[in-house]
Amino acid sequence: MKIKEIKATELDAEEFIKEKVNEIFSIVGDGLAINALSGGVDSSTVTMLGHKALGDRLKTCFIDNGIMRQNEPQQVASLFGQLGVYVEIVDAREKFFNALKGITDPEEKREAITQTFYRNVFGQLVRKSGAKFLLHGTILTDVDETIAGIKRQHNVFEQLGIDPREAFGYTIIEPLVQLRKDGVRKVAEALGLPESVYNRMPFPGPALAARVIGEVTPEKIEIVRQATAITEAELAHTKAFQYMAILHQDRVTGIRDGKRDFGLQIEIRCWDSVDARTARPTRVSYDALDKLADRIVAEVPGVVSVTYNITLKPPSTMEAV
Amino acid sequence: MKIKEIKATELDAEEFIKEKVNEIFSIVGDGLAINALSGGVDSSTVTMLGHKALGDRLKTCFIDNGIMRQNEPQQVASLFGQLGVYVEIVDAREKFFNALKGITDPEEKREAITQTFYRNVFGQLVRKSGAKFLLHGTILTDVDETIAGIKRQHNVFEQLGIDPREAFGYTIIEPLVQLRKDGVRKVAEALGLPESVYNRMPFPGPALAARVIGEVTPEKIEIVRQATAITEAELAHTKAFQYMAILHQDRVTGIRDGKRDFGLQIEIRCWDSVDARTARPTRVSYDALDKLADRIVAEVPGVVSVTYNITLKPPSTMEAV
Repeated sequence: MKIKEIKATELDAEEFIKEKVNEIFSIVGDGLAINALSGGVDSSTVTMLGHKALGDRLKTCFIDNGIMRQNEPQQVASLFGQLGVYVEIVDAREKFFNALKGITDPEEKREAITQTFYRNVFGQLVRKSGAKFLLHGTILTDVDETIAGIKRQHNVFEQLGIDPREAFGYTIIEPLVQLRKDGVRKVAEALGLPESVYNRMPFPGPALAARVIGEVTPEKIEIVRQATAITEAELAHTKAFQYMAILHQDRVTGIRDGKRDFGLQIEIRCWDSVDARTARPTRVSYDALDKLADRIVAEVPGVVSVTYNITLKPPSTMEAV
Repeated sequence: MKIKEIKATELDAEEFIKEKVNEIFSIVGDGLAINALSGGVDSSTVTMLGHKALGDRLKTCFIDNGIMRQNEPQQVASLFGQLGVYVEIVDAREKFFNALKGITDPEEKREAITQTFYRNVFGQLVRKSGAKFLLHGTILTDVDETIAGIKRQHNVFEQLGIDPREAFGYTIIEPLVQLRKDGVRKVAEALGLPESVYNRMPFPGPALAARVIGEVTPEKIEIVRQATAITEAELAHTKAFQYMAILHQDRVTGIRDGKRDFGLQIEIRCWDSVDARTARPTRVSYDALDKLADRIVAEVPGVVSVTYNITLKPPSTMEAV
């Protein structure tokens, strides 16, 4: 079934919210629903729509998969707490790292995270909760890229022709699937979410695992987590669509204390984009790039080299993995 | 033995040439000498000094190791032919690629090239020629970096305490060992070499093998050779100290014809430096970087991503391998 796109320019956010709240209410009825909140604009918007429709009959979980950014679980739970939405933090770090052990192929990595998320962690939460309905923040760009075979997103089973009821034991509701990122931001703002959420930059489903080339280990995640914190602080002033740090598997020669150090390389990407379908590297000033690179090599253990991506999407994608 | 540095600012190029020509003549006597010309400023300068001292008693070879840049053997031989110096091109491509097979560690790569160069290819040429003296373009920066353990240069056996007479059956003469790159350029100019040589940017001993992360194969060399040709054309206007393209082993996600393409990444480095001891990334305009990246992804098969290195040396080195 072809999805009818609603362009941000044509979107009446208030009307959209009313419609989706009714839709969720009519699908779930007096049942229980559950959703996983990552803190991104998509899942935050779904959380608010769901709570508007269902109140306490929507259970919202933040799954700490060990591959989130610095303090992210606590920050997200605290923010939603202030909005009157209780978020349960579920510690699943070990399960995810075990599932990722030995995997280097990006598709297999995504698949391991998907399987761990749905079958292992979230599947159990759903069964324990008794909820039969899962709210999910899939947007149209995810669907396009999955159909095109660019990436295997973990949230578009229906679009891939897989019956999620059969696959995982519940029904997926995707209230944002007709929107692109700019549309979601309008809805988030209209829902009363703070600017830190509705203007929050996109962050991938596989989280920092998408920012590690090659095998994902707790040690590598810690390195890319530190580089990510520095990058987000140093590039915030650009107000770019998205910026990120990527830890390479390739090692390069460097010098530390006058001696050869066969070290790590971090790649920075910073994108200008409206809807993530196409993007171009932001023209960050060299002063800002210098400071960013200096901080990364000084503060992140083992890193001797930093690059800045200068390729258009396409043929690049925004994420590397 | 500590080498006495001659700084470029204190260098009397004419006097230096006279002294070194006498020195070479006095060491070689009426013997035969041989040298390998790569076309770089160091080996070109040594070739001219040697021919001034010895005339036809210096045999100059260009060893085509298969890892040189586009048309480099022919261009170098033709240039020196115009200067009255006959250069013999020796086809050793298969020997080098065989020696590099399966090697991924940068040190082992350099070692394989060194061993192939000296023991296998150049050793044989020397034995066949009857020459007992090898002229070599080692400069002081090579020595520093070798002693510091940053890189294993293939031309500083004496500094490492290895007797080259014992190791390879000949005596190495290093007329440039007191100079850094800026001093060599002055000597090259004073020798009457054309600007394309004395202002030619440095190129590493292991040639394009230093520009491939991971195993070196003829296919990867061809990819980095094409990227190098484009990079050198597009960054010539910067007049930077050195610029290069590096082929990564890591693969990154890209999009080709609307489909996912798990493709190659090329890293660009462009350095501002006086003497190669320290360096900083050139502030190339984004217009120039855009054009460079666009050409690389359009013209070099399999490449979906291009980065620009933004790290200082130290802790980076100029070359990646």
